[in-house]
Amino acid sequence: MTYKLAELSGPAVAQNLTDTSIVVIPTGAIEHHGAHLPLITDALIASSVAEEAVVEGRSQGLDLWLLPTLTYTKSDEHAWAPGTMWLSAETLWSTLIDLGRSIATTPARKVVFVNGHGGNTALLGVANRELRRQFGLATFSMPAGLAQAAPEELGFGIHAGYAETSVVAHLRPDLVSMDLAERNVPEPMADLKYIGFNGYPVSFGWTSDDFGPSGVIGDPTGATPEAGKSLFTESVHRAVAALTEISAFTTRRADPPASEAGS
Amino acid sequence: MTYKLAELSGPAVAQNLTDTSIVVIPTGAIEHHGAHLPLITDALIASSVAEEAVVEGRSQGLDLWLLPTLTYTKSDEHAWAPGTMWLSAETLWSTLIDLGRSIATTPARKVVFVNGHGGNTALLGVANRELRRQFGLATFSMPAGLAQAAPEELGFGIHAGYAETSVVAHLRPDLVSMDLAERNVPEPMADLKYIGFNGYPVSFGWTSDDFGPSGVIGDPTGATPEAGKSLFTESVHRAVAALTEISAFTTRRADPPASEAGS
Amino acid sequence: MTYKLAELSGPAVAQNLTDTSIVVIPTGAIEHHGAHLPLITDALIASSVAEEAVVEGRSQGLDLWLLPTLTYTKSDEHAWAPGTMWLSAETLWSTLIDLGRSIATTPARKVVFVNGHGGNTALLGVANRELRRQFGLATFSMPAGLAQAAPEELGFGIHAGYAETSVVAHLRPDLVSMDLAERNVPEPMADLKYIGFNGYPVSFGWTSDDFGPSGVIGDPTGATPEAGKSLFTESVHRAVAALTEISAFTTRRADPPASEAGS
Amino acid sequence: MTYKLAELSGPAVAQNLTDTSIVVIPTGAIEHHGAHLPLITDALIASSVAEEAVVEGRSQGLDLWLLPTLTYTKSDEHAWAPGTMWLSAETLWSTLIDLGRSIATTPARKVVFVNGHGGNTALLGVANRELRRQFGLATFSMPAGLAQAAPEELGFGIHAGYAETSVVAHLRPDLVSMDLAERNVPEPMADLKYIGFNGYPVSFGWTSDDFGPSGVIGDPTGATPEAGKSLFTESVHRAVAALTEISAFTTRRADPPASEAGS
Amino acid sequence: MTYKLAELSGPAVAQNLTDTSIVVIPTGAIEHHGAHLPLITDALIASSVAEEAVVEGRSQGLDLWLLPTLTYTKSDEHAWAPGTMWLSAETLWSTLIDLGRSIATTPARKVVFVNGHGGNTALLGVANRELRRQFGLATFSMPAGLAQAAPEELGFGIHAGYAETSVVAHLRPDLVSMDLAERNVPEPMADLKYIGFNGYPVSFGWTSDDFGPSGVIGDPTGATPEAGKSLFTESVHRAVAALTEISAFTTRRADPPASEAGS
Amino acid sequence: MTYKLAELSGPAVAQNLTDTSIVVIPTGAIEHHGAHLPLITDALIASSVAEEAVVEGRSQGLDLWLLPTLTYTKSDEHAWAPGTMWLSAETLWSTLIDLGRSIATTPARKVVFVNGHGGNTALLGVANRELRRQFGLATFSMPAGLAQAAPEELGFGIHAGYAETSVVAHLRPDLVSMDLAERNVPEPMADLKYIGFNGYPVSFGWTSDDFGPSGVIGDPTGATPEAGKSLFTESVHRAVAALTEISAFTTRRADPPASEAGS
Repeated sequence: MTYKLAELSGPAVAQNLTDTSIVVIPTGAIEHHGAHLPLITDALIASSVAEEAVVEGRSQGLDLWLLPTLTYTKSDEHAWAPGTMWLSAETLWSTLIDLGRSIATTPARKVVFVNGHGGNTALLGVANRELRRQFGLATFSMPAGLAQAAPEELGFGIHAGYAETSVVAHLRPDLVSMDLAERNVPEPMADLKYIGFNGYPVSFGWTSDDFGPSGVIGDPTGATPEAGKSLFTESVHRAVAALTEISAFTTRRADPPASEAGS
Repeated sequence: MTYKLAELSGPAVAQNLTDTSIVVIPTGAIEHHGAHLPLITDALIASSVAEEAVVEGRSQGLDLWLLPTLTYTKSDEHAWAPGTMWLSAETLWSTLIDLGRSIATTPARKVVFVNGHGGNTALLGVANRELRRQFGLATFSMPAGLAQAAPEELGFGIHAGYAETSVVAHLRPDLVSMDLAERNVPEPMADLKYIGFNGYPVSFGWTSDDFGPSGVIGDPTGATPEAGKSLFTESVHRAVAALTEISAFTTRRADPPASEAGS
Repeated sequence: MTYKLAELSGPAVAQNLTDTSIVVIPTGAIEHHGAHLPLITDALIASSVAEEAVVEGRSQGLDLWLLPTLTYTKSDEHAWAPGTMWLSAETLWSTLIDLGRSIATTPARKVVFVNGHGGNTALLGVANRELRRQFGLATFSMPAGLAQAAPEELGFGIHAGYAETSVVAHLRPDLVSMDLAERNVPEPMADLKYIGFNGYPVSFGWTSDDFGPSGVIGDPTGATPEAGKSLFTESVHRAVAALTEISAFTTRRADPPASEAGS
Repeated sequence: MTYKLAELSGPAVAQNLTDTSIVVIPTGAIEHHGAHLPLITDALIASSVAEEAVVEGRSQGLDLWLLPTLTYTKSDEHAWAPGTMWLSAETLWSTLIDLGRSIATTPARKVVFVNGHGGNTALLGVANRELRRQFGLATFSMPAGLAQAAPEELGFGIHAGYAETSVVAHLRPDLVSMDLAERNVPEPMADLKYIGFNGYPVSFGWTSDDFGPSGVIGDPTGATPEAGKSLFTESVHRAVAALTEISAFTTRRADPPASEAGS
Repeated sequence: MTYKLAELSGPAVAQNLTDTSIVVIPTGAIEHHGAHLPLITDALIASSVAEEAVVEGRSQGLDLWLLPTLTYTKSDEHAWAPGTMWLSAETLWSTLIDLGRSIATTPARKVVFVNGHGGNTALLGVANRELRRQFGLATFSMPAGLAQAAPEELGFGIHAGYAETSVVAHLRPDLVSMDLAERNVPEPMADLKYIGFNGYPVSFGWTSDDFGPSGVIGDPTGATPEAGKSLFTESVHRAVAALTEISAFTTRRADPPASEAGS
Repeated sequence: MTYKLAELSGPAVAQNLTDTSIVVIPTGAIEHHGAHLPLITDALIASSVAEEAVVEGRSQGLDLWLLPTLTYTKSDEHAWAPGTMWLSAETLWSTLIDLGRSIATTPARKVVFVNGHGGNTALLGVANRELRRQFGLATFSMPAGLAQAAPEELGFGIHAGYAETSVVAHLRPDLVSMDLAERNVPEPMADLKYIGFNGYPVSFGWTSDDFGPSGVIGDPTGATPEAGKSLFTESVHRAVAALTEISAFTTRRADPPASEAGS
């Protein structure tokens, strides 16, 4: 049987899903990723990791169901760059609420967003809680890719840098123009102790042109398909491990059955 | 060069698109299509027709660029059926506005929605005007599939009937369960002169369970892959012809260049 | 007894309406109609046709109740022209939802929008479904006027052309300045096979200044009060016939009684 | 020439209105007014007073233009009563913003809401400021009717009481059922010093069923057409006097010309 | 025990509040108040009056609970002046709804807004009704300060004038710069019979720069701490008297218990 | 001179702030914190840390200005508990946008949210970017308190646990009921490798009743005022250090001057 939820019929959803089922939704982006990577980068990575993880997880007995990727998401930090196709925070929020409402009518009680675009992370976090409160779903989100960076990136390989470029070079080498890859690292930030992109105590509001016109934050110049293959494989393994943990996860408050959920 | 806009880089969008470029966006749905068809039916048909039409149109010299399918759309008429993943009218509206705003920052001035789900048609019509007024884009929408019906459908083969079932049987035979196909035609409506689904003077508000629990409106029982192939081919031809006309279309009011567009 | 719902008292609404009652709401517009017609044109035609049809329909035994005209509606295609008083799509949408919610608390289960402004048609279609889904009402919309056109209009007499001008010349001759009437027909569109205003496969987004500064789309120069009288009479007859059909219309899903309706 | 703005053509609006022009919009309601008065009461009174005042004011040289009545407004305090057709606060707010935006594109710089429904008063006050800030319009609102009450009303003749009943008995005697008129006065409130309907320091939130099931707040039993005629005449005189003052009103900040207004 | 609701624990709220409890919320503003008064003026006065009144009222046996001040509110009339920190009408509206929803889950059934900013008055009035209708709360709003004016103000001491300046000079003399106080009275308005700020039949839309650049409407030059002390004391007395009346206030419709309230 | 921005007059804001000024806004919450802590806990900690940090930072030459605390924020995870006064995500979002718009009209170009409530963190992150994109402000957010936990908390002292209880015991010992403090640690989560509250790859949606009825997540039983004093002091030091870094922070894209900012 297919692992793609949308390839089932409506009645088959009602019959085949149960309260152990986990719905997996990749969330990507269509946004500026420098001159060397395609706009589709984040959607490509999220879709590929999620699909592989669902296939592998099912082979290990997890009750996983893949939904189509949310391709267009909140790329407001790249709104200045032609080609970026972005939803406002309000629109992505409404989309996530609507999906949660819809999923809550199936027997499944768990939803996981496998997210390929950092600009969605915070809003997904807010939505996770809203979907739990409004619809009683158990909700989760996780990054599709790994944050691993090249040393030249000084920890700032967050967008179109070594890791993303390598993974795309592995998945779709035809879409990468390494001759156009250029390093763009906000070096002065390396000296900062409080302000940073992730894991720092101070979060800051930025758009990608804050760091120059290239649309890159990181150093893609050393990226290779081999590194990409390795990163991709690790990402999938991590995702499967996380889905395994999600499958067993429960809290003291029982999730309501589908018949009582909904708004 | 790729015909998929999102496979370009941001700078490549700025370089390769011009004011003759036409952006094509398939709009599908994930919704109940009876027991014999997959939820993905409308998205599948819209994506397939649009992609074929873009490829064929480009081979004829049209400057066409395909964007990823809007998979989740306004399936409120099937909201009652588990498996339907639907956006509210407000959410789809916001999504369309956001996409228009984004496209208006590229050199392209024309957008075409190739729509696989009848429940989107009216809202796409409203959005066409809004995107023109707000962003100066020339906007168009058209059905992906053909309305051709089997005689047994009495003109009501609008959802999961002969045409859709045949086309899916052609495109993805593995997703069709002909043994579960059953005829569900609102026969009393055949006598009506004013009220009807399309092309009648009186439009009416319906949800698919108004016509029984099957989620079908039409008669899929006679559907064949051969008929599907023929319908699909015709749909693509019509789409290419329409895109050719769209390419030459202009009005007295000049479309503003990208630099002046936007809100 | 009055046929105007709002001339009843509240308790009289509860006593006199039943589940066979049909609430009729004319929807007009206050918008630019060229130099020869008043802004009120669409509201005038919708109000007049709807009122006549309600009177005539009641004389034939239909249980019809007229509500006041929604005078201000979605005239965004004429927003550029001073004098146009327009609601955004969002505002008209909210208004229709609010009216549906209100009507659902009366015993009546059917609502018909008799629409004088083409710019409302698509949004009324979307709202018909929303009111059915949210409130269980049976909802309908129909054009107030006839689309009949003069040959010189090449099928494009959609705004301030022969038909509308004739009908206003019949209803309110004092408001028509035939000396200012001028033909404005988008002739190049006559050769198009796919793109068109109504009944064509490709819908397009337009504002009325796309076709020049006159605010007319059609040819009003041959309009006469006699033609208007005939068109008006036919429109009323068609509306009565449609209301008769609506009165008998039912689907398999029973409409819920008022006590269970509402959000 | 007509005094009804919507009876002008678009070009005639641009030619005939100037920055001395005042646009007058009656705001009514369709809401429960007890068993003896029609739902249309407030819309009837607002429309009648505004129209008479415009006619009389123009005869005295004021540059007044009447727009069609906003018939459906914010009757949330009567939402419990079938027959009440009410807009939410949000919807009326959006409607007022949209109208302000539209009027700001005409040469007129002043707008007056002549309001027949107390439930709109506060929101109109909020909107007056918003329209001034957003569009630079000079905005005003005033009650259509007089607050004059019968002694038996203890000052509480605010809804369907002596004054409103008398005026409707004057304007449309066919719509009044005096045999169903009954006194419903919240007598305990007469002893209150701080809490009250209007002019008291403490405003309170009420719905009309807080005062019993009749939907009346006041004492209509002594109403007469003669009193109504007198009240109506006085209302019109007051409205004309107020419009005269509005016509001369200015502040230190110059109103921007139409070409600079708008958002 | 504390009189500050937020100093209780959650369980203590459930134990200590009953259906006789009254929740008091001061509503202030951070907005331009001329060169002589601080932005915090309205929030300061509202907080001080409300707190004193709660303390005094409790000493007289009233079951009063103070919530933290809504400091940022709808100061759109001063949006032009740097330093004004204002919420839009929509945002304040949503905030009030959210607070009402929250309060409705406690045992308390009455809420009083003690308002220090005139620009909130109308919207609070609209919200009072909405909270009553949606959540069944008994809702009240009242001005924190007294409208008493100096004769030189001609009745226009509504913003940063004699009364407000005196009260701040009493409460926080360090924040008043009497050397910068200047009279700014819209003298021409003194002759008007219909148009005025409060208690006049015609309400008008104004922003504070309509009356010149000073941001003052009134005459603060004669303000003294002594007058402020007296005004403050009177304000508190009036508030306590009003709260006493509110405590005894009831309507025929019983307020629903907490368990049934909420949306 | 005061360090409280709202104690300045409007003109003083324009004179005393410059593009080096940093506006500091504490964000708290009024929400269930177990039986032993007051609802005001988060607002108290955020206000206290922010105020101390502003005072200390100014003494070190930083150009800091404190605005009043946003007391009511997004406590949806405690919405089930009476006493929680929460804004929806949409309302807090609108509030943050409105504040950003207001601040952008002052000379200051930097804004820092010092946040006492974890439930706001993600939305503040989303808003930081929105305020930068829309208004050109440099925006920052940071936790007010330290995450330091007691060993018994197994890393889960995130709400009303050791750290928060200690700090409140230091700041307001009168508001802490140590006899009601009880440990509530989601022990099974300690074994999880992927799913966790902070710093884990998988984020999950939870409401506080998921972990039992106590409203505590952590172990407050060992909390002491001394530990609270130490934690508080460290928090202030960290905040000052972070503000120092923020003061020097810049990106390649220059922040626009106030005159060009705003929407």
